[in-house]
Amino acid sequence: MKATVTVMLKQGVLDPQGEAVKSALGSLGFQGVAGVRQGKVIELDLAPGTTEAEVTAMCEKLLANTVIESYRVEMGA
Amino acid sequence: MKATVTVMLKQGVLDPQGEAVKSALGSLGFQGVAGVRQGKVIELDLAPGTTEAEVTAMCEKLLANTVIESYRVEMGA
Repeated sequence: MKATVTVMLKQGVLDPQGEAVKSALGSLGFQGVAGVRQGKVIELDLAPGTTEAEVTAMCEKLLANTVIESYRVEMGA
Repeated sequence: MKATVTVMLKQGVLDPQGEAVKSALGSLGFQGVAGVRQGKVIELDLAPGTTEAEVTAMCEKLLANTVIESYRVEMGA
């Protein structure tokens, strides 16, 4: 089974990567980009029967730095 | 309006970051993780009326390296 974890910096945490992308989009002539936030997405290929609680434990222990990042778990088929 | 762009390495392209996460999860005692792929997610805050075609152009020009990465655009409200 698959699970997808999306990790984003929390609101209020400075995102220099996102700022760089925003600035680069402006330089390329794309107008009206008011904000950019960049995060990471982790696709996990898991053994059948793995629970969402286990994936949440993976996030808490390794995948996200919960001091500055929030995460979202989506369980797939 | 919001748009979310998800950029992943194409199938067959080696993903050392994902391999490192897989190995670290194993070391932490999480069993049955058969594969991990890591990509990035970019949340764009755009001017009202921005079309999906414009976001696709941003991907082609800047956000994704289309030689080795594939991308998916989701337009939000």
